[in-house]
Amino acid sequence: MLCLDHQGYIAQIISPQMKDYQLLIDAAKKADCLLELAADQVILPGFIDLHIHAPQWPNAGVALDQPLEQWLNAYTFPLEKRYQDPSFAKKVYANLVQELLAQGTTTALYFGSVHNLGNLELVKACYHYGQRGFVGKVVMDNPQQTPEDYRDLSTAQALRDTEDFIKTVQQLNQSESIPVTPVITPRFVPSCTTPTLAGLGYLARQYNLPIQSHCSESDWENDYAIQNYHQRDAEVLNHFGLLTDKAVMAHGTLLNEADLNLFQKRQVALAHCPISNVYFGNAVLPAKEILERKNKMGLGTDISGGFSPSLYQNIRQAVISSHQLHEGVDARIDPSTRGSSRKMLTMKNAFYLATVGGAQSLHVPAGVIQVGHYADLQIVRQNWQAFQAETPVMRFEKFMYHTTKANIDQVMVQGKLINLNQGVNDD
Amino acid sequence: MLCLDHQGYIAQIISPQMKDYQLLIDAAKKADCLLELAADQVILPGFIDLHIHAPQWPNAGVALDQPLEQWLNAYTFPLEKRYQDPSFAKKVYANLVQELLAQGTTTALYFGSVHNLGNLELVKACYHYGQRGFVGKVVMDNPQQTPEDYRDLSTAQALRDTEDFIKTVQQLNQSESIPVTPVITPRFVPSCTTPTLAGLGYLARQYNLPIQSHCSESDWENDYAIQNYHQRDAEVLNHFGLLTDKAVMAHGTLLNEADLNLFQKRQVALAHCPISNVYFGNAVLPAKEILERKNKMGLGTDISGGFSPSLYQNIRQAVISSHQLHEGVDARIDPSTRGSSRKMLTMKNAFYLATVGGAQSLHVPAGVIQVGHYADLQIVRQNWQAFQAETPVMRFEKFMYHTTKANIDQVMVQGKLINLNQGVNDD
Repeated sequence: MLCLDHQGYIAQIISPQMKDYQLLIDAAKKADCLLELAADQVILPGFIDLHIHAPQWPNAGVALDQPLEQWLNAYTFPLEKRYQDPSFAKKVYANLVQELLAQGTTTALYFGSVHNLGNLELVKACYHYGQRGFVGKVVMDNPQQTPEDYRDLSTAQALRDTEDFIKTVQQLNQSESIPVTPVITPRFVPSCTTPTLAGLGYLARQYNLPIQSHCSESDWENDYAIQNYHQRDAEVLNHFGLLTDKAVMAHGTLLNEADLNLFQKRQVALAHCPISNVYFGNAVLPAKEILERKNKMGLGTDISGGFSPSLYQNIRQAVISSHQLHEGVDARIDPSTRGSSRKMLTMKNAFYLATVGGAQSLHVPAGVIQVGHYADLQIVRQNWQAFQAETPVMRFEKFMYHTTKANIDQVMVQGKLINLNQGVNDD
Repeated sequence: MLCLDHQGYIAQIISPQMKDYQLLIDAAKKADCLLELAADQVILPGFIDLHIHAPQWPNAGVALDQPLEQWLNAYTFPLEKRYQDPSFAKKVYANLVQELLAQGTTTALYFGSVHNLGNLELVKACYHYGQRGFVGKVVMDNPQQTPEDYRDLSTAQALRDTEDFIKTVQQLNQSESIPVTPVITPRFVPSCTTPTLAGLGYLARQYNLPIQSHCSESDWENDYAIQNYHQRDAEVLNHFGLLTDKAVMAHGTLLNEADLNLFQKRQVALAHCPISNVYFGNAVLPAKEILERKNKMGLGTDISGGFSPSLYQNIRQAVISSHQLHEGVDARIDPSTRGSSRKMLTMKNAFYLATVGGAQSLHVPAGVIQVGHYADLQIVRQNWQAFQAETPVMRFEKFMYHTTKANIDQVMVQGKLINLNQGVNDD
């Protein structure tokens, strides 16, 4: 039995063998605060989505057969531009936050758009629906790499808006039980001018805030830094003070050993986005090796580079992609050289990324069911009929392979049960 | 408007512009046989699962991290052996057939087990729940490649049981509106002795029946034929008369050009199983090229080599795997040589495989909404909120990327609505 305190932490874990067990059950019943699991339900830590572009939600599942540039300029940027209208932002973000909660995602690290009013609607949606949110005002001011009608107009404006956003959120947090953390968010190196990157590094230090960006997501991004800075993407970010122990860098499929050593030295976290990487990553992240070298890493949906708001689907794809990296894909290559030396991720590894890995990356006491940690939980119903004795490992694998939103019965953030019946999508 | 006849065919397709439209609507209303779509519903052809091992359903999602031999001998064969108990078979098959129907699968080509009584329970489940079934009694009699406690004891017994199964099903069909087709089913070349392969080829001719097996699924299977027959896997099957225009061969990830030419010459269909191939295929099937060379091909879930009973999930993985084959997976390889010349499958291609491709492979007038074809249909509800004008292509992609069982509202086989409320899994 999990006993929660009034701040939403797990205060005690009592097993039936321990004394007071029945006493506590009865007391909780009397106080009408006992939540009992049915025989076919299990309780799991809530998931942490370590990389998601909130404004791209309406495009989830759209145009994934397009090349990156076409996808960005014909679909993604035109959509993100619409968030200058706060009423549009409010509608979409209400739907997205409810969707993620219903998918078992209790914490999310969000890219917003460049628009502060729109981003504040995302912050308010997290408050209103009860999700633990980390939200960044996206900064993109490089005229060469951003559309004329969707960019920050200058370094000064980009930094001022970022600072305004930080202060406003900190202000709003004072009346909230689950605060939203503002995040320094340079979209990625190519989209920012150097003074802006430097200024964002300064703000991150000044306010001691998390940082999020993309790093070596694709060959193109990887090459951009080398062409324009004669440095690796990671080195550029490091140079501007954007690689800290509170930094979360998305993708990293093209990171090399030196980059990973730098990430480790700086305690930078990696947001592995296995579905998105299929379409835009140009390679599979060697996630098993990165886990073994003890780099910080979690899992992200990367809506809408990834089509699915479900971390279960990303857990599955993380395992699938690691199998393909290990086995190789082209039958015309001899089996002796078709595959790679890269190891396969186990289902446990992938589950770890979606829970413990994400929590460590954000320095949140969550992702594990343990005294002193937040009661960020999901109650999932077994959605298969068991026709044989199933070991705990078999059941675990089946929960990971078969769970969809439809059998996530309850979600709790910091001890508060979420209302999941607000007419959200059911995919 | 689709007008169905009493045999369950689509008899007419009437558009609102055509005369008699309102007349027919009123008549149907009066006869209480009008099924109206809600604004957020679309009607799609039912899916055809071209390769699924029915007895393996209880293991779906289990032990996929195990090597093939361990997976077969420690998990798969011991489970299949249990179907010598018809009451066990009846329970599992009732659950599986309902599950597939709820997932939008109106036709399935099933591998059974070696046990006729168990296989007949699968046939009866198809009758009872209204699915168009193709069912094969699995033949495996090679003592070197099959477990002592789970095999056909001799060629004579294997062929006699196969023939008994055919006759019994043909007998049972006489009182059914949707017949089940018996299928000649050598498990695969390694598991059968040569006289048995020859005998099965003879039975296929004698009864003019479909044939199903595996062909060049993995390096191991591919090599087995070369080692033991000094021929390619496909050539061995062809030699024994098992490659006909009614044959469906699963996987084929290791087929070469000559094999594919032979398949084309003989009009053999390929069952592409993209999820299963990730775990046991050793490579990605170049599905786009196979479509372009006009080989017959459909899509299979390959439960439990694949974890998902959903063809939607296999449609997505077919696209995903083709991206990885095109892009390559290992970031350490230079981008200029990392990928392959293989093309990417579009979402339309994958949908075609799950519908038209499967129907052609089984010679069933289904898989397309057209006059003269069976009304094998699924009514799917849009499970996302549209925040922008969505083109038909965007909507199509979203239906393919986001649909789960939870938003498949109605399923119809040969004009009969399926009762989907029988407490099946909801993954």
